[in-house]
Amino acid sequence: MVLLAVDRARIAAAARRVMARCDELARVSATSGGIERVYLSPEHARVNRLAAEWMREVGMTARQDAAGNQLGRMTPASGEVDAPALLLGSHLDTVPDAGRFDGIVGVLMALEVARLLRVPDDGPARAGLPFALEVIAFSDEEGTRFGKALLGSSAVGGTWNDDWWTLTDAEGTSLREAFLEFGLDPARVGEAARRPDELVGYLEAHIEQGPQLDRRGESLAVVSSIASARRFQVVVEGEARHAGGTPYDMRRDALLGASEATLAVERICRAEHHIIGTVGQLEAFPGAVNVVPGEARLSLDLRGEFDGERDRVWLSIERELDAIMGRRGLRWRAHEVHSAPAVFCAPLLQDVVREGILSTLPGGGDPAVLFSPAGHDGMAIGAITDVGMLFLRNPDGISHHPDEAVSAGDVARGIQALAEAVLQLAADR
Amino acid sequence: MVLLAVDRARIAAAARRVMARCDELARVSATSGGIERVYLSPEHARVNRLAAEWMREVGMTARQDAAGNQLGRMTPASGEVDAPALLLGSHLDTVPDAGRFDGIVGVLMALEVARLLRVPDDGPARAGLPFALEVIAFSDEEGTRFGKALLGSSAVGGTWNDDWWTLTDAEGTSLREAFLEFGLDPARVGEAARRPDELVGYLEAHIEQGPQLDRRGESLAVVSSIASARRFQVVVEGEARHAGGTPYDMRRDALLGASEATLAVERICRAEHHIIGTVGQLEAFPGAVNVVPGEARLSLDLRGEFDGERDRVWLSIERELDAIMGRRGLRWRAHEVHSAPAVFCAPLLQDVVREGILSTLPGGGDPAVLFSPAGHDGMAIGAITDVGMLFLRNPDGISHHPDEAVSAGDVARGIQALAEAVLQLAADR
Repeated sequence: MVLLAVDRARIAAAARRVMARCDELARVSATSGGIERVYLSPEHARVNRLAAEWMREVGMTARQDAAGNQLGRMTPASGEVDAPALLLGSHLDTVPDAGRFDGIVGVLMALEVARLLRVPDDGPARAGLPFALEVIAFSDEEGTRFGKALLGSSAVGGTWNDDWWTLTDAEGTSLREAFLEFGLDPARVGEAARRPDELVGYLEAHIEQGPQLDRRGESLAVVSSIASARRFQVVVEGEARHAGGTPYDMRRDALLGASEATLAVERICRAEHHIIGTVGQLEAFPGAVNVVPGEARLSLDLRGEFDGERDRVWLSIERELDAIMGRRGLRWRAHEVHSAPAVFCAPLLQDVVREGILSTLPGGGDPAVLFSPAGHDGMAIGAITDVGMLFLRNPDGISHHPDEAVSAGDVARGIQALAEAVLQLAADR
Repeated sequence: MVLLAVDRARIAAAARRVMARCDELARVSATSGGIERVYLSPEHARVNRLAAEWMREVGMTARQDAAGNQLGRMTPASGEVDAPALLLGSHLDTVPDAGRFDGIVGVLMALEVARLLRVPDDGPARAGLPFALEVIAFSDEEGTRFGKALLGSSAVGGTWNDDWWTLTDAEGTSLREAFLEFGLDPARVGEAARRPDELVGYLEAHIEQGPQLDRRGESLAVVSSIASARRFQVVVEGEARHAGGTPYDMRRDALLGASEATLAVERICRAEHHIIGTVGQLEAFPGAVNVVPGEARLSLDLRGEFDGERDRVWLSIERELDAIMGRRGLRWRAHEVHSAPAVFCAPLLQDVVREGILSTLPGGGDPAVLFSPAGHDGMAIGAITDVGMLFLRNPDGISHHPDEAVSAGDVARGIQALAEAVLQLAADR
C-alpha cells in the first residue's frame, strides 16, 4: 500500500530543485573550472550556510555541529521536542575534480523529503511522523584533505580518534589547526556524537558509483550492505643495480615483482564474485632510467560484500606474492593501512526502501538489491544506529569525475521512494 | 714481446697510490656519508685542483679546458711541443650515492702510466714515446646534474649542442648559469673541442660494471664495443574510475597495461643474446589508492652490442605493446629520448690492449673480450679519434653503489696492461 499522497507535479518540481541546487553547489569550489570542496575549507563554510538556509526554508531548525556537520531538525507531529529522530542525509564534501552528485544529491533529496512530509505544509513545521526528522549534511566523507575518510560521520558516530588531530593536509596544516581556523573548538568535538537512544535510524540516498542499475535499465536499488574493505601498502625489495652491466640472471628487479603482483591481484579478484582489488599507486625506486629498481611500492584496495570472502582473497594474494617474490629473489611486506568490516543495512530499513522503490513502479517489479563496493557515511553511523540506503542509477557508472551524472527523472523517483520509505517506517512503529 | 721494463714493486706501489687516491677523492662529496660529485659543483672544482696537482707531480703541464675537463700533458721524447697526443683517462664525476671507482680509477691509473713512461723519470718530463701523452679527467660522464650524459667528453668530441644551455638541474639552475658560476665562459665552450689530427687515439681503463670477469675468475678484459642504446618514455592511457564501483569488465586500467608491458620487455629481451632492457621508472596516475589508474608512465632503456639487433628487439616490443594495449582497450605511445649507435673499439687499440693484458699473464692465456652495455666517454670521443678500452674485474658486478669494488691486485695488473698497451702502440708507429 502506497502511503505517500502527493501529485507527480510536486515530486517533479522537487527533483528540478535538487538538480538546480546541485548546479548551485557545484559553483562553490576551491578550483575554477572544476569542483573541489574539502573539509574545513571556506567552501565547506559556504555550503553549510546554503544548506542551513534551505533547511530553514522547509521549516527546520538548523545548526552546525561540533565537527562541522550541518543539521536541520523538524519535531514530530506530537510536538515532543526530544523525540528520537530519523536521520536522512549524505555529505557535501568532494574528491578533487569531482562530479556534482556524489553525496550532494542525497542531502538535497533529504531536504525535499522533509518538505513533502511536513504537516501542515504551510504552518509551523512538524513532521507528520511518530519521530523527529533530521537532515544531515556530513562535512567529510571523502577524506580528500586529511587522507582519512568519514571524519564528519565518525564524529557523529562517536568514534572520533584523538590520534587524528595531528593529521596534516598538503600544506602542512594539522586537523587541529584547521578546526580552529574554521571556528570549531577541538576540545568540543565529542559534542557531535549522538546517542543511540536519540536516533530511529539513518537513511541515505546516493548515486550508485557503478553501472549495475544502468545495465539493468532500472532507476533505483535497495542497498544490502556497504563493502568490507582493506587497504595495504605493499613494499617489494630487491637490489638496485646498473641497468647496463647487470645480466638478467643477476637481477633482483623489484619492479618486475611488483608488476607480477599487480597482475596477480587482477587475476585472483576477477575469479571471485563480489570481490574487487585495485592497485592505484605504484612507484619504482630509485626511479632512474638506467638503474634496475631496487624497491617498488604499491597500494592495494580490496573490497568485498563479506569480510570472510575478502580475507580469504587476501590470503590467496599473500600466497601468490610469496611465490612470485620467491621466484625472483625478492622480499615483500604489506602494511595494512585501513580495515573496515562490511556494514549490513538493517533488514527493516531494507524492507522500507524496497517498499519505497515499489511505490515508483506502478506495474510492480522486483527492485534490484545491490551491495555498495564504495564506502559511505553509513559505515560510521552504523556504530550508533540502523542504516539503510537507496541507490540512484549512475549512467555508465562514472563517478568521482566531472562526467558523473544522474537524471532528473531518477531523482524524482528517488525522492518519492525515500519519502515513501520514511512513511512505511512510521507506519511500522 | 713485453716492452715494459719495470719491477713488480713499482707497479704495486702505483696501485696502492691509486687505491689511496680513490679513497681521498671519495671524501670530496656533496653529501656526508656518501659520494656525490656532479658537473660544475664545488666538488668538481676541488677534484680538478687535486688532479692538476697530481698531473704536475708526474711532470705534466696541467690545464682545465673550456668545458671543465682537467688535462695533463707530457711532450714526447722528441720534444715536439705540438705532437699529436694519445689520450688516457676517464671521468671524475659520479652518480648519486656512488661507489669510489667508476671513472675515478681510470683517471688515476692513467696518471700512474704517465709516471711509468716518463723518461728520464727524475729529469724534465718527457714521455718515452713517439707521441705526446695526455691524461684527461672528464668532467661529466654520468649526467647526474643536468640529465644529459657525456657533457664533458661531448665538448672534447666537438659535438656540444647549444640546445643544452637551457637544461636545468633539480634546483632550476641552467647549464649556462652553472658554467658562469663555475667560472667558465659559455661562449668559449667550443675551445674544448680537439681536432682529429691532434690525437693518436683514446685509451680508457674502467671497472666492468658487470660480473663477467668475476665469473670467469679473470682480472682484465679487452673491450670490443660500447653498447648501442635507445631510451624511451612510454605513456599508457586508459580511464581513471572509482575503484569501488567499477567492475573489471568496465575497467581500462593503465597500470595493468604498463605492468604487462614491463614483463614483456623482460621476456623479449631475455630471449635474445646481448640485449638488455630495463624499466627503471614506472608511475601510475592519478595515483590515488581508490582510483583505477587512468594513465601510467614508464621508462625503457634498451642496450645491445649491435644497432640492428637492438632495433629489431624494439620492433618486437612495439608489436607486443600493441597487442597488450589492444586487449585492454588502452592507448600507448613512446617518445624516444636518447639514441646512441654502438661505438666499436678500433682493431689496433683492441690488439694493443690484448698485448697489454697478455703481459700480465706470464703463463699466457686468451684474454676476455667483452662489449660494454654501459656507456662511456669513448662514445663521445669516438667522433674524433680511435677508442680503446680495458675493463677491470668488478666483484659481483656491483657499480653505481657504495659497495662498488675493485682489488689493488687487479689495479696493479691494469696499470701494467695499460702501460704495455701504450708501448705496443708506440712500437707499432
